[in-house]
Amino acid sequence: MSMQSFFNPKSVAIIGASRDPNRPGNTILKNLKSMGYRGRVFPVNPNLTEIDGLQCYPDVLSIDEDVENVVILVSADRAVRVAEEIAERRKRRNDVKAVICISGGFSELNTSEGRERERRLVETLKGSGVRLMGPNCVGVIDCYSRFTTNFDLGDYPTGGISLVSQSGALATAFLFWARPFNRIGLSKLVSIGNMADVDMVECIEYLGNDPTTDVIGVYLEGYRDPRKLFETMRNVSSEKPIVLLKAGRSEIGSSAALSHTASLTGLDALYDAASKQCGVIRVKDVLEWYETLHAIGKQPIPQGNRVAVLTHIGGPGTLTVDRIGIGRVLRMAAISDRGKSAIRSMVAPTATVCSPDGYIDLTASHTEELHYKVLKVLFEEEGVDSVIQVVGHSMFLSQTLMADRISTAFEEVGRANRKTFLNVVAFDESLPEFKLGLENRGLPEFPTPEIAVTVLEYMYWYANKRKRLASAPRLTPLPPARSEPPVLGREVLLESEAYPILKRYGISVADYRIETNYDELEDAAEEIGFPVVLKAQHQRLIHKTDAGAVALNISDASELRERFHEVTENVIRHIGEPPSSYLVQKMIKPGAEVIVGAVHDDSFGPVISFGSGGVLVELLKDVSSRLIPLSEDEAAEMIQETFASRLLSGFRGEEPKDINALVELLLKVSEMMLKEGWIKELDLNPVKPLRKGYAVVDARIVLR
Amino acid sequence: MSMQSFFNPKSVAIIGASRDPNRPGNTILKNLKSMGYRGRVFPVNPNLTEIDGLQCYPDVLSIDEDVENVVILVSADRAVRVAEEIAERRKRRNDVKAVICISGGFSELNTSEGRERERRLVETLKGSGVRLMGPNCVGVIDCYSRFTTNFDLGDYPTGGISLVSQSGALATAFLFWARPFNRIGLSKLVSIGNMADVDMVECIEYLGNDPTTDVIGVYLEGYRDPRKLFETMRNVSSEKPIVLLKAGRSEIGSSAALSHTASLTGLDALYDAASKQCGVIRVKDVLEWYETLHAIGKQPIPQGNRVAVLTHIGGPGTLTVDRIGIGRVLRMAAISDRGKSAIRSMVAPTATVCSPDGYIDLTASHTEELHYKVLKVLFEEEGVDSVIQVVGHSMFLSQTLMADRISTAFEEVGRANRKTFLNVVAFDESLPEFKLGLENRGLPEFPTPEIAVTVLEYMYWYANKRKRLASAPRLTPLPPARSEPPVLGREVLLESEAYPILKRYGISVADYRIETNYDELEDAAEEIGFPVVLKAQHQRLIHKTDAGAVALNISDASELRERFHEVTENVIRHIGEPPSSYLVQKMIKPGAEVIVGAVHDDSFGPVISFGSGGVLVELLKDVSSRLIPLSEDEAAEMIQETFASRLLSGFRGEEPKDINALVELLLKVSEMMLKEGWIKELDLNPVKPLRKGYAVVDARIVLR
Repeated sequence: MSMQSFFNPKSVAIIGASRDPNRPGNTILKNLKSMGYRGRVFPVNPNLTEIDGLQCYPDVLSIDEDVENVVILVSADRAVRVAEEIAERRKRRNDVKAVICISGGFSELNTSEGRERERRLVETLKGSGVRLMGPNCVGVIDCYSRFTTNFDLGDYPTGGISLVSQSGALATAFLFWARPFNRIGLSKLVSIGNMADVDMVECIEYLGNDPTTDVIGVYLEGYRDPRKLFETMRNVSSEKPIVLLKAGRSEIGSSAALSHTASLTGLDALYDAASKQCGVIRVKDVLEWYETLHAIGKQPIPQGNRVAVLTHIGGPGTLTVDRIGIGRVLRMAAISDRGKSAIRSMVAPTATVCSPDGYIDLTASHTEELHYKVLKVLFEEEGVDSVIQVVGHSMFLSQTLMADRISTAFEEVGRANRKTFLNVVAFDESLPEFKLGLENRGLPEFPTPEIAVTVLEYMYWYANKRKRLASAPRLTPLPPARSEPPVLGREVLLESEAYPILKRYGISVADYRIETNYDELEDAAEEIGFPVVLKAQHQRLIHKTDAGAVALNISDASELRERFHEVTENVIRHIGEPPSSYLVQKMIKPGAEVIVGAVHDDSFGPVISFGSGGVLVELLKDVSSRLIPLSEDEAAEMIQETFASRLLSGFRGEEPKDINALVELLLKVSEMMLKEGWIKELDLNPVKPLRKGYAVVDARIVLR
Repeated sequence: MSMQSFFNPKSVAIIGASRDPNRPGNTILKNLKSMGYRGRVFPVNPNLTEIDGLQCYPDVLSIDEDVENVVILVSADRAVRVAEEIAERRKRRNDVKAVICISGGFSELNTSEGRERERRLVETLKGSGVRLMGPNCVGVIDCYSRFTTNFDLGDYPTGGISLVSQSGALATAFLFWARPFNRIGLSKLVSIGNMADVDMVECIEYLGNDPTTDVIGVYLEGYRDPRKLFETMRNVSSEKPIVLLKAGRSEIGSSAALSHTASLTGLDALYDAASKQCGVIRVKDVLEWYETLHAIGKQPIPQGNRVAVLTHIGGPGTLTVDRIGIGRVLRMAAISDRGKSAIRSMVAPTATVCSPDGYIDLTASHTEELHYKVLKVLFEEEGVDSVIQVVGHSMFLSQTLMADRISTAFEEVGRANRKTFLNVVAFDESLPEFKLGLENRGLPEFPTPEIAVTVLEYMYWYANKRKRLASAPRLTPLPPARSEPPVLGREVLLESEAYPILKRYGISVADYRIETNYDELEDAAEEIGFPVVLKAQHQRLIHKTDAGAVALNISDASELRERFHEVTENVIRHIGEPPSSYLVQKMIKPGAEVIVGAVHDDSFGPVISFGSGGVLVELLKDVSSRLIPLSEDEAAEMIQETFASRLLSGFRGEEPKDINALVELLLKVSEMMLKEGWIKELDLNPVKPLRKGYAVVDARIVLR
């Protein structure tokens, strides 16, 4: 069956229909009517024969026409019985294709009864080929098909924004927020509740292919297969922006989410990494979610990061420039000499023109026409990608004329050449006609300078990222999850077992030899060349350094002999047996260290991390991660995100290290994690970046 | 004269009064009328004899009654002439006390003409004993005296919030934002413009003493004597909260501010440090400024950081808990068993009660009465300091009844026992009656969970800080700025000259001797005990390490001799002369390093800094600063703010260092900077924290 039966059914039965205007079973009928839904509507309620002129049926079985969609509003127990009737009806008539179960009382209760009820609901419906949305949701609004199951919100302005939300309330809140000022037009809203059957991935895929959807807003608490989710979002993102608000950024927040929607809230840092990798705009809070959708819904994505700021009120104007400077994502535009003199010839002598460059303060001597004229100049400047205009109350100007002149300046630019244009209305609640005037002409307005700049930063980030999404490697499907390890019956490989595997993938390991007696060890050390490191090995020796099984910086044979005896004794003391072998390795001189790690995460699958070595990683968590596989671009981006990158590029007069070689290392580790499905964790710690290349000087591989 | 003449004059002359309803000279008259100002009003305009029933005068000299306050609206050039007439009038009648110059065209133009005009304006008025507010401002609103010079905003709800702003537009924006929902009551607004005479400090002092002002909002772009400003704010903060929005957080933002209000924007980090030190709530953006003033204006300051969250909508509820967790300032309250079972007995089985603890989700089965009852329980819980309630749209509940039941629950708690109570109205624009209902009963509502939590964090920080403000050392007056240095004709002291000064203040320096020939040096080294450090000294040797004049970790006499020759040769090569003396110093074993620095800043005066040593300070700017003098509390707080503090308290199994000794060191450096007025910069870099005590191992003092 297609998702169409959820969004555009030919007919719908409402189980739990009601005459009481204070019940969802009544308001849904009203909303279907006010939306102008053209399909057939069948109210179901055993106690009524008619509601608002519609014939009412005692149960779903007794409807004598084709029913494509069934909306369930009755209690959880009764919902399960209704599902059985639907299964029975499928047998008889083969008509019902989709069920939207609004009712709560299922797995979100976090009780065994709740889970059991949900299991029975899904099994019954799936068993008879019927798809389920919910339970515990507010269902669907489709402004194009005019179908709705929403009991709160009636008809809504039509447009290109669609929403998928694990919280019905949050998505509806956004719609309520936007409506009074025509801030957005809606295509579809999907509240997916417990996702017992139809889930987030299907909905995003559907909206990705939906011709009336231009932007997708997602509210996510957790998803069992995040890799699949992000792969889907990346495919969509390369054409349509996705703005993601993800709950569970803190541990305590995750536990609140768990108790509410019975879904898993994953590791937040990985959601962050995956969002970056997949071009998903992950915002930090509700206001950012609202306003980013608002802006992207109305304005083009900027072509670059150069912003001009136009205002007539110095304080809010200054704060705008300030916020641009703090963010270090956008920068003030350089206005051409021609542009500057054109503007100077228009404005009052008290005005500020391009000090700093790109900033224009008309001061109180502004007029509607002056805004129009200066905007015209800015919109023609080649060095300007976006314009933020900050407008306040003017006792002496007309709100409607002001909105008209501003909008006209924007519209007079050919559609293909339009810059991103955001307006801050600093006297927010006092300028309703001005705000409405702008919004009605497609110009989004924002309450504060800071949120406008934040939104523009997100838009610019996305514009940049989108170009590279198409060429990124696919995240799914992954090769077989688990494969035979090279050794059995152990949790961790010996270092001497790990190195050959690394080398097979072309990873550079500091020169080493493995020997079992001293004389051979000394020969090996001579061959490698002093100074060397000595490490004792044994299956039961997990933390070598703690056991005194490692000796660094050995400068000659006599010292080697001494250390050999020491580490041997240490190991015997520690595990009651001598080492099974010894590893001598070239000592790399002290200097920058980094860490490369990879894990096979239970939910995200293989993931790679790069971080600073030493104190920075532990103190600052100076690590960046990505899902495997990753592109060369992404590997370079990972390194750039860490403080380590600054240490490596010649910080404090140190010689710059070979960052390209580290990019290659990340790609090789990525390849290895995909092919060696038996690896659970891999730690190359430390890796020594060199002027040319790098050297791995310790490796730890944990088996799955 | 007292500031009263600005806020509550017995009579006012309006220079530039007008009959045109589109001119400030007319709207000010209207606003004075609508406010019900009871003093005498004298319009001045040479072309009119009467405006709106008031007699109009040709100039300020011809007014034949006493004039206390003069408001100037005419052009800048004419304003200067009016000032001359006022001076003349003072001679004749000795009546005018205060002038509010709204007109622009002065120093904010950043031209020599503008500055000259402003100088003449101030000189003329000051010379005749008249105080000036502005120019380039919107002047004053006083809701208690009913006096106003504002041409935009008429009568306003009366309350306890006062504003001082370097941007009239920004302060007015706040008032417009708050009005439709009765979010705030205003005591006074002061827009101080260019601060040519009356300045920020005077206004804040005045509001600090004003019995109708409970909270002060400050918008600051820059102030020439920030130390005096912060001392003033600290004195006020110990009774009344001050919420500061400071522009110029970025360099580019500072330059926009400069071009606008002709005032200095100082070093942002020092403004930040001073705010912390003085209990000033420094917010990050306009929305935080609005909402923090809004909340503090209506609700008590919390007694602790334990928050309960009550909601009926899971998504926004989860985001609230999440934001609390991310902030790590507040924490979820632990509800007593009694409280939990009381709540469980009220709510539907589908509700979430205390999972996580302190979080209650009533789900869709909420009612007006249920909110009331659960709030009653939470308000009685001893373990709860604040309650955040997150409410959304309920098709089936009454907005007014809901607001009433919620407000009643709050009001039924005795005034002395009230907890801080913030409401998030998640369907913002759709619930006007609900919002108004709450606000009218003194309950502030917020548009998103995140801003409510942010505001509560600020309130909690202030509550904590306020207790300690009274005992902090005074920042003004400072002892004489500059004193005779111990040596003349040089910029930098030799290390051997710096150490005795440090020691005089009880600062521990690693044991050292100064000698001029090798034999004495060797004796000195033996006396100190190897290993030692050798440093060559010379007046012209500024960067010792770069010149090869330092040798570390010398383990015996033979090595000392070798190094002695090396450093001598290096110095000769570098400056063409041998060292003038040598310093041997005890080598402190490698380990944690910190930096203690102090500077005499041009605007802030003496300032002290503490930071991580090595790579952390340069890479992360891991430094915290305070104005000198500082209290023991503040010294401890400085250390805690840095990552260094975590390295020092036993990170990664290292032995914990003596943090109290570092606190003492900061206090001693503070004392030294106050007494030795000749020091421009002081760098103790590095300082080695020890298990007991610390050791300074290098010192650099730059003379003023």
